Amino acid sequence: MKGSPNYLVALALMALACSIASAYDPAPLQDFCVAINSSTDAVFVNGKFCKDPKFVTANHFFFQGLNIPRSTANPLGSNVTILNVDEIPGLNTLGISLARLDLAPYGLIPPHTHPRASEILVVLEGTLYVGFITSNPDNRFFSKILNVGDVFVFPIGLIHFEFNVGKTNVVAFVGLNGQNLCGLITIANNVFGANPPINPDVLIKAFQLDKNVVDYLQKKFEG
Amino acid sequence: MKGSPNYLVALALMALACSIASAYDPAPLQDFCVAINSSTDAVFVNGKFCKDPKFVTANHFFFQGLNIPRSTANPLGSNVTILNVDEIPGLNTLGISLARLDLAPYGLIPPHTHPRASEILVVLEGTLYVGFITSNPDNRFFSKILNVGDVFVFPIGLIHFEFNVGKTNVVAFVGLNGQNLCGLITIANNVFGANPPINPDVLIKAFQLDKNVVDYLQKKFEG
Amino acid sequence: MKGSPNYLVALALMALACSIASAYDPAPLQDFCVAINSSTDAVFVNGKFCKDPKFVTANHFFFQGLNIPRSTANPLGSNVTILNVDEIPGLNTLGISLARLDLAPYGLIPPHTHPRASEILVVLEGTLYVGFITSNPDNRFFSKILNVGDVFVFPIGLIHFEFNVGKTNVVAFVGLNGQNLCGLITIANNVFGANPPINPDVLIKAFQLDKNVVDYLQKKFEG
Amino acid sequence: MKGSPNYLVALALMALACSIASAYDPAPLQDFCVAINSSTDAVFVNGKFCKDPKFVTANHFFFQGLNIPRSTANPLGSNVTILNVDEIPGLNTLGISLARLDLAPYGLIPPHTHPRASEILVVLEGTLYVGFITSNPDNRFFSKILNVGDVFVFPIGLIHFEFNVGKTNVVAFVGLNGQNLCGLITIANNVFGANPPINPDVLIKAFQLDKNVVDYLQKKFEG
Amino acid sequence: MKGSPNYLVALALMALACSIASAYDPAPLQDFCVAINSSTDAVFVNGKFCKDPKFVTANHFFFQGLNIPRSTANPLGSNVTILNVDEIPGLNTLGISLARLDLAPYGLIPPHTHPRASEILVVLEGTLYVGFITSNPDNRFFSKILNVGDVFVFPIGLIHFEFNVGKTNVVAFVGLNGQNLCGLITIANNVFGANPPINPDVLIKAFQLDKNVVDYLQKKFEG
Amino acid sequence: MKGSPNYLVALALMALACSIASAYDPAPLQDFCVAINSSTDAVFVNGKFCKDPKFVTANHFFFQGLNIPRSTANPLGSNVTILNVDEIPGLNTLGISLARLDLAPYGLIPPHTHPRASEILVVLEGTLYVGFITSNPDNRFFSKILNVGDVFVFPIGLIHFEFNVGKTNVVAFVGLNGQNLCGLITIANNVFGANPPINPDVLIKAFQLDKNVVDYLQKKFEG
Repeated sequence: MKGSPNYLVALALMALACSIASAYDPAPLQDFCVAINSSTDAVFVNGKFCKDPKFVTANHFFFQGLNIPRSTANPLGSNVTILNVDEIPGLNTLGISLARLDLAPYGLIPPHTHPRASEILVVLEGTLYVGFITSNPDNRFFSKILNVGDVFVFPIGLIHFEFNVGKTNVVAFVGLNGQNLCGLITIANNVFGANPPINPDVLIKAFQLDKNVVDYLQKKFEG
Repeated sequence: MKGSPNYLVALALMALACSIASAYDPAPLQDFCVAINSSTDAVFVNGKFCKDPKFVTANHFFFQGLNIPRSTANPLGSNVTILNVDEIPGLNTLGISLARLDLAPYGLIPPHTHPRASEILVVLEGTLYVGFITSNPDNRFFSKILNVGDVFVFPIGLIHFEFNVGKTNVVAFVGLNGQNLCGLITIANNVFGANPPINPDVLIKAFQLDKNVVDYLQKKFEG
Repeated sequence: MKGSPNYLVALALMALACSIASAYDPAPLQDFCVAINSSTDAVFVNGKFCKDPKFVTANHFFFQGLNIPRSTANPLGSNVTILNVDEIPGLNTLGISLARLDLAPYGLIPPHTHPRASEILVVLEGTLYVGFITSNPDNRFFSKILNVGDVFVFPIGLIHFEFNVGKTNVVAFVGLNGQNLCGLITIANNVFGANPPINPDVLIKAFQLDKNVVDYLQKKFEG
Repeated sequence: MKGSPNYLVALALMALACSIASAYDPAPLQDFCVAINSSTDAVFVNGKFCKDPKFVTANHFFFQGLNIPRSTANPLGSNVTILNVDEIPGLNTLGISLARLDLAPYGLIPPHTHPRASEILVVLEGTLYVGFITSNPDNRFFSKILNVGDVFVFPIGLIHFEFNVGKTNVVAFVGLNGQNLCGLITIANNVFGANPPINPDVLIKAFQLDKNVVDYLQKKFEG
Repeated sequence: MKGSPNYLVALALMALACSIASAYDPAPLQDFCVAINSSTDAVFVNGKFCKDPKFVTANHFFFQGLNIPRSTANPLGSNVTILNVDEIPGLNTLGISLARLDLAPYGLIPPHTHPRASEILVVLEGTLYVGFITSNPDNRFFSKILNVGDVFVFPIGLIHFEFNVGKTNVVAFVGLNGQNLCGLITIANNVFGANPPINPDVLIKAFQLDKNVVDYLQKKFEG
Repeated sequence: MKGSPNYLVALALMALACSIASAYDPAPLQDFCVAINSSTDAVFVNGKFCKDPKFVTANHFFFQGLNIPRSTANPLGSNVTILNVDEIPGLNTLGISLARLDLAPYGLIPPHTHPRASEILVVLEGTLYVGFITSNPDNRFFSKILNVGDVFVFPIGLIHFEFNVGKTNVVAFVGLNGQNLCGLITIANNVFGANPPINPDVLIKAFQLDKNVVDYLQKKFEG
């Protein structure tokens, strides 16, 4: 085979680790296109290859256990359980996903953006402070404290966060019009934890911070 | 008149009663385009007019009370609480929505389709039998009994239903990649309850039913 | 190789039996992408693989014989001749298709929907009663009796039908902004002829029919 | 009128003379959006304003008389009868249209392109020579002689033509995945009949023609 | 004014301050839709209203002076000259724009994102260090030092920056597949300069900074 | 293997010679999808296959030398240097591209169209006469003489040209919202240089030219 393109295909069809089909995705071209969870390295397409529909079952559209609380024993005191095409292969091409948010008291889902999906959130337990910021030049901040049964919408592409400001755990569910949450960009990690690190001069000037603060942050967030 | 914009808007912009922005909608052309809930008869566009962004607040992205059980005291024993652009004007152009489903024991959300959105459902309480059917020529039926914490996906355009097969109430939340559920087509009501009624000969032949059964059904479902 | 992904590819490229490229499809990314009619089971994509353009000829854009009447000797007294990507591989990615309708007197194309295409119909022979029904909550019925040379439009996603109310055969041509008609959902077959059958309790309640009528219908429509 | 919404509409909604909604258009955001045929000069949007759905009837989706032969008594010996949003207002936002082609013997529909729609053609009468040419650098020419019942596809954006090479009239119907044909660019008229005329030096050099031939052509095609 | 359309427009059509038509925008539905630069507050749509095509001239597609160096006498030492729909009204609905970047030595265009456009940059003068970072969980950093004639691409939605690492001024041109750059989100300003300010506890936890550093930053970036 | 589909794949993944991802392309479904420059004949998709993201580097988003003047020693006196997905594989799925135009005095980029991209042009050196023509029935011609620093926009799908009317070389850069320029249709070459040639009768009638002029042109433009 000698490295021929065949070899490429032979090992083929490993899914892109983090492909996202958002509201802007190509629509499905058939009733469904259940993603193949392929294994070895190889050929990729814009999206995912599909399983032969003959072998598709209801289980490809199914996931179990979103009611189970997730651990928040981490520095941010929060946990995001994402159901995307890797968990539910039937989501492929459908441009929709679901997530469960767990936040301990004072837990935070830090400012982040997902450029390919809007988000609608409903609080099941606790008290949650949420907000988003509009783009240049206004940088307007819209925020709200949410209680059980409250719903909030985050427009596509804008930076937003969720913060548990109550004394009990928060549980919330979010719907997204993207097939997973994987295009998520957590600002602090992305900018200070880039791998390899961004030239610190860029961050010093952009954030108007001392070099030692930037050094500290780049160390803190490194992978 | 004094040229006030309010006047213009007040008279002008009655919303289409049931406009839907789905996953296939035009993307938002700015950070957001909060829908105007206008009042009198007038001008319509494909979608909705937007509120002046200066007057937009966090409340336009907010809804309260999705935790409150809805009455299921109706023949179907079910209730769908839709949060769409009429309830949350900030949803306009974002192509996403959320709904709460309440089903009494033996309650049914009958076979229906929403041609402009896929759906992802999570069960919060009870036991729910769900299914969808593929298109011609196979008409394959995919179904599953769901318990608390289970998630299921309904691909865009396919006919599907939810049925409470447990002994307690079911509560479920669904995310949709459309800005409301209003393009919903409930098969039985649509076909037998059309207004004015469809020529019964069509239904007799299509459903291979006796004329008196069709008469009975058309009477039953009439508006 | 033993079942490696290569094997998968080796057998690969069988077209999804019924892929549809609708008006919402990804646009063509080159002048054309003529579909490969591959043979053995295997790898699928959202849409179709393309033939090497060097081997494409005018015949890939061509079909012969749409003038020939089709048999209507079946219970519905109708026949739909679909020209889609399986008949004309050059249609792949173009999002358009054509069909010929033949209806004997009293012949019916029963209520159906194709969630991924609008339709425009022109009558060549005979007298045709057509109609469509809008979505919830209005279920408004728009209908018209068409004669030779008349044209009618069915908006995307709405349930519609065609019924020969004349004394002679009807011939009509329809254009659709989808690459084939395969996403077609014939309501009665889909709901009563699902395979395996839907739990009859769902249909009894949804259609408010007796169990024996539902049993009768499920038997009638079973595959 | 006193500033009533009618006033607004009365002044407001002159349709763009030749708006086109193609396969790439924004999808409909409601069941339909029937175009208003407004009268006086005024405000335009990308697309058309919609009629209040309460006042929509089946006639807005209807057109009569496509069976009637059109005159081909003109220099090209051809006639294209376009059914678009101006003839059928219900086509607005649906991204589909239909046309009837009449060609006398030796009649020509000259090389043209419609950058926003693919086309599928079926011959009802006569013998038609058709062809399209691919883009740079190959300029490959695909052509076919079509007889009654033959179908041919023209991919979006490519230059194509139809030519009656038989001894009798040709009648053909074409479906397009655009709401009208109005984006049509007839090459010869567009380039040589531009208004005001293009600097002849451009055409001399582009077409490698003598100045007097270009002068002759610009005179011939001037509006 | 006598009911002239001008009056209507005068009251009606204030442009959204910062509307963006990106690559994901609805396509143009006619040859062009030149934006109206309206004046007083009023009615908004998703996008812009269009000028009557009769009054459109070549100047609506034209802009003068992109060759003139811009001042970089500001703390960041950089200047972005954006040509968007406000400068070139003919860009409306076309989903493309152009910008000129000026950077003094050590000047920075700080980390930012524009969720609705990809970007292609070409260096005309000087030496520019550029980079972008991928999304979670990898946060991979791709960077390059560019010299005159070098070109670099920034994929849609990802955070990126430009930094003058040479001893002379940098001039670069960038093309974007959005009609303006206005959806631009400059990370530092957006997060630390939000208006009103974000609860500092969110930023302390997200960036793992001391309260006094966050206070300092929020003061520094406040509007 | 014997000609099995595997064989097809074995040789596979040669890129379509001239695939274009325009503003209407499917959006990227992940951060990026760098095109594979495959070699032997084989399998094609609508677009390109992607390189394993692990092996992607900054160089896949990079190109060198756009500052170097190109030779204009050809009959048209012009040269278009296109940076598309073949030159910059990272452009795949991003729907944007860049080109450099060189025109000697009296050099011409002849009337052409690219049906899948709008274009924005900026003049770096010299004096350039540019224009575009609208579609039927108006064929309005919009033109402008541009000097250094001037910018002009060509709406998608319309025929346009660039002509050096100064005494010195012209250099211009153009941004396009398509991933390459390959869908480009140069009118004269396309129509008169089609391969195989179009039946001359079609061109005689369409352009109202003598047979010998058409013969001359077909000879002139033949491949």
